[in-house]
Amino acid sequence: MSQMFSQTLRQAPAGAEVKSHRLLLRAGFIRQLAAGLFSYLPLAKRSLAKIENILREEMNAIGGQEISMPVVHPAELWKETGRWYEIGSELGRFKDKNEREMALAMTHEEVIGDLVRKEIRSHRQLPQLLYHIQIKWRDDPRPRAGLIRAREFTMKDSYSLDADEEGLDRQYRNHYQAYFNIFNRCALPTLAVRSDVGMMGGSMAHEFMYPTPIGEDTLLICDACGYTANRQIAEFRKPPAEPEEPRKAEKIETPGADTIEKLARFLGIPESKTAKAFFAVATITEGTEDVERFVLAVVRGDMEVNETKLANAVRAKELRPAREEEIRHAGASPGYGSPVGVKDALVVVDDAVKDSPNLAAGANEDGYHLINTNYGLDYEADIVSDIALAGEGDACPRCGEAMRTTRGVEVGNIFKLGTRYSEPLGCTFLDAEGDSKPVLMGSYGIGVGRLLACVAEEHNDENGLVWPITVAPYEVHLISLGGGEAVAEDLYRELTGRGVEVLYDDRDERPGVKFNDADLIGNPIRLTVGARSLERGGVELKLRREQESELVPVEEVAQSIERRLAALRTEIEERVVEVPFEE
Amino acid sequence: MSQMFSQTLRQAPAGAEVKSHRLLLRAGFIRQLAAGLFSYLPLAKRSLAKIENILREEMNAIGGQEISMPVVHPAELWKETGRWYEIGSELGRFKDKNEREMALAMTHEEVIGDLVRKEIRSHRQLPQLLYHIQIKWRDDPRPRAGLIRAREFTMKDSYSLDADEEGLDRQYRNHYQAYFNIFNRCALPTLAVRSDVGMMGGSMAHEFMYPTPIGEDTLLICDACGYTANRQIAEFRKPPAEPEEPRKAEKIETPGADTIEKLARFLGIPESKTAKAFFAVATITEGTEDVERFVLAVVRGDMEVNETKLANAVRAKELRPAREEEIRHAGASPGYGSPVGVKDALVVVDDAVKDSPNLAAGANEDGYHLINTNYGLDYEADIVSDIALAGEGDACPRCGEAMRTTRGVEVGNIFKLGTRYSEPLGCTFLDAEGDSKPVLMGSYGIGVGRLLACVAEEHNDENGLVWPITVAPYEVHLISLGGGEAVAEDLYRELTGRGVEVLYDDRDERPGVKFNDADLIGNPIRLTVGARSLERGGVELKLRREQESELVPVEEVAQSIERRLAALRTEIEERVVEVPFEE
Repeated sequence: MSQMFSQTLRQAPAGAEVKSHRLLLRAGFIRQLAAGLFSYLPLAKRSLAKIENILREEMNAIGGQEISMPVVHPAELWKETGRWYEIGSELGRFKDKNEREMALAMTHEEVIGDLVRKEIRSHRQLPQLLYHIQIKWRDDPRPRAGLIRAREFTMKDSYSLDADEEGLDRQYRNHYQAYFNIFNRCALPTLAVRSDVGMMGGSMAHEFMYPTPIGEDTLLICDACGYTANRQIAEFRKPPAEPEEPRKAEKIETPGADTIEKLARFLGIPESKTAKAFFAVATITEGTEDVERFVLAVVRGDMEVNETKLANAVRAKELRPAREEEIRHAGASPGYGSPVGVKDALVVVDDAVKDSPNLAAGANEDGYHLINTNYGLDYEADIVSDIALAGEGDACPRCGEAMRTTRGVEVGNIFKLGTRYSEPLGCTFLDAEGDSKPVLMGSYGIGVGRLLACVAEEHNDENGLVWPITVAPYEVHLISLGGGEAVAEDLYRELTGRGVEVLYDDRDERPGVKFNDADLIGNPIRLTVGARSLERGGVELKLRREQESELVPVEEVAQSIERRLAALRTEIEERVVEVPFEE
Repeated sequence: MSQMFSQTLRQAPAGAEVKSHRLLLRAGFIRQLAAGLFSYLPLAKRSLAKIENILREEMNAIGGQEISMPVVHPAELWKETGRWYEIGSELGRFKDKNEREMALAMTHEEVIGDLVRKEIRSHRQLPQLLYHIQIKWRDDPRPRAGLIRAREFTMKDSYSLDADEEGLDRQYRNHYQAYFNIFNRCALPTLAVRSDVGMMGGSMAHEFMYPTPIGEDTLLICDACGYTANRQIAEFRKPPAEPEEPRKAEKIETPGADTIEKLARFLGIPESKTAKAFFAVATITEGTEDVERFVLAVVRGDMEVNETKLANAVRAKELRPAREEEIRHAGASPGYGSPVGVKDALVVVDDAVKDSPNLAAGANEDGYHLINTNYGLDYEADIVSDIALAGEGDACPRCGEAMRTTRGVEVGNIFKLGTRYSEPLGCTFLDAEGDSKPVLMGSYGIGVGRLLACVAEEHNDENGLVWPITVAPYEVHLISLGGGEAVAEDLYRELTGRGVEVLYDDRDERPGVKFNDADLIGNPIRLTVGARSLERGGVELKLRREQESELVPVEEVAQSIERRLAALRTEIEERVVEVPFEE
């Protein structure tokens, strides 16, 4: 430690609000270069190398072949799949010396596709699983929480190539299990949840979520049947409306009733007997052009609009709430809106609205509502779809039991891409009958730095980090105190000679400083040698996570350490279990 | 091999002119994504991992601590050192989502400096040696020779931090030896040559050159005393002029004598009795501004101008030959030029010109020369410096013996940067007396992909690659032929169980195809098992580099392989020797 570059800090720099971020800064693992850009110092680099090895082992175990693809991509390739146009400023773009447009990798489907169309000819070359561990750039306007949401990060991304759906399904399920193995080996609890495919496209996606209050995602969980989903796509059983004969709509004055709550109170009806309008502007890509469309979405008054579902329903690249002048321009009235009489709007109606008769809805005139509006009689929709947001207590779509919500950080994701990329890029193969077919692709990612940060977020106490043995930078933290230097040197040589990873605090510092740093850095086993411990008969051995220490005779230290390390590793191995696949 | 993603190619794609590039493409190691951008397929990835491990071992052996710094840098940092302005379009630049300027790493002195100024306070924290193995982007207008000159590449770059010159010198020499160890462990012959510091700055630099006709650099080598240098900075003993009393200059008509050769013939004098003018335009950075200056350089007629020396003499960021109108504008005449009577030019005179009396020089009038011009009498210079180009047969600056030239590829470089970065970035420390001093830095780089390509360029024959054991993707290439499948499977399991790396060709292909692929891929040991070899009593074992094979009984194969591998490794280890440091 007297030679180690990184120093511990008494206090984290200002602006580090998340625990793992503060601790990784204080313990000298990382330093910030600029917003969302981090350098990994020697301790972090060691932990990252361990995580990367776990990733390699689990990828190799399901047939992965490691490759390495560039970070800089020619824009042409991203234009071929349309993502050059579909993705906004999150994608890094620049021009090279010869004025050719280039993209910075935010993911590698395009480059894999280019490799595949050049290499794969026959079904005999399939299936394949390729992966690499490589830099990505995603320009987040609000990088936060340290490594959890960085702009530049290292990712393990794998890509499966198959001749048929069964093959893709097998590779998808292989990753599902491999990902649980990876997180379990890092001692990180995770849930797999169904998720939005987003800019990746494809037919199915799961996110692996580390449940934590600092998470930016909300998850719906059914403890009864195991249904779990990201709120962005979570379904739920909507309370059905009472069947009634449709009545004739009638305009009434509703002064000041510009919210659903006020309207229901004014009319003396439940919120479920009202219709709620939401106005948005969607950016939709038509060919290589982006066009803006005004969107009017309607959900029942007892529900909220889910903007992700809405964006997916209209295939929007981006979607934002409409401004008042845009709402008025369409002939609608904020606070008193509905599709009735609105012009030039893309109308999207939640399926529950369609099945709920006689709802009170806006009259598109300030201070007025219509009572007894009915879908099909008073207005039509361009799209009828589920666009409602699931929340705490909503009924599980599978079993009907009440669901709960929790927050989580996405630490991995898996996508069944199908032909989303192979078709535009022309990745085809000849099947056994000699017919040309598109390769079926899957894409699977884990952010390495984010995983490290989540492990730090999960494993710490008031004194610092408490690393699991599989991710700790070193296995043993050896402290020499006054009079223990010679024995410590010997132990250091003996332990490292046996292949034990030892961080040796040989500094000329007070015991308190050394103990505090050991706690802050968080290696699993601490050994302390000083004149006092030697007088008492040996060396003090303490697990980072426990309070009690044990006195071990010097000649038994190596054996004792090896026994402890084996036990710590067994504990981790026992976490690795088979997990049933949940659609 | 039936499952391996990469396929061998009968022919290299068009445009691959260099042997290593053709072979790495044909053998399925790499694929081009775009000009200067390459994907590394599984075979290359394995070889790269081995090279990276060698790099790590040698860096760790001299006290290196591995870290990882970002690829995307804030422009501010590059502005602080001035390189944002000094470096041209080779530096990748873009704006982030918030319109902040960003640079793509072409090297990491700035980021190291930023780390150092935040972490290093005291001399007790020095010396340090940090390194990482990370992506770089250098936008070459003419990427060529495959991995040898790529635009995106992985580099091992290390940075030393010292309190004094002795410390910097020690780290520089440590790298000098470590680099020879690295190249020797990769079985790549190299020379260390003194070189230009270029855009890196600093006081001393060596390049490690792999001598090969495909190299873009020319080296001067003295076999007598060991002096070696890149031609860009090579010095030489210039033949002295006969001492003579200066005579009065005189203008004479020299019709058509617009070259030195014609002039010398016309006047009946040796070329060494003439002065040669070279006109250039230099871009010079003054503060944050770039200005263009017209430069008139003069060497003796028996020498050529060295543009690198000239650029260094005038501290130019860029230097290009002047156009005719620029020459005329300065009052000079192309073909008949000299400093006499020229206005608004930065005049640079080679030291040999200063010491050579009575030279014939241009009169700056078409068709006329001056005879008997003398420095100090007929013209002055802004700068007198060595700006002459060394060539084949020139006298060694140390011992005077004739030097030879050879071409080479730069596979590594080491720079004594001194305070070039620590001063502008404010990297200071308090010395033992409590005085604030700038940290002394060194910077040391090896391109990983280029090193792989040079090893391929050095080790091949007409049938393909012939990898040294330390870089080969696999140690053993196992071929099963008809009737040998069961034995091959057993051997595969036995050998891999013993930790031997085996590429197993289990494909249903003709023997010729399998042998050709084995030769093309070039793993060091080939094992062939078929009904025929088994009838003859065993398995055919052949070294890739040898013609003869040996028949080994099945039960002795593992032992025999291990013996062969040990011998191959010993051969490499014997290459690793101490190399005396040559300034």
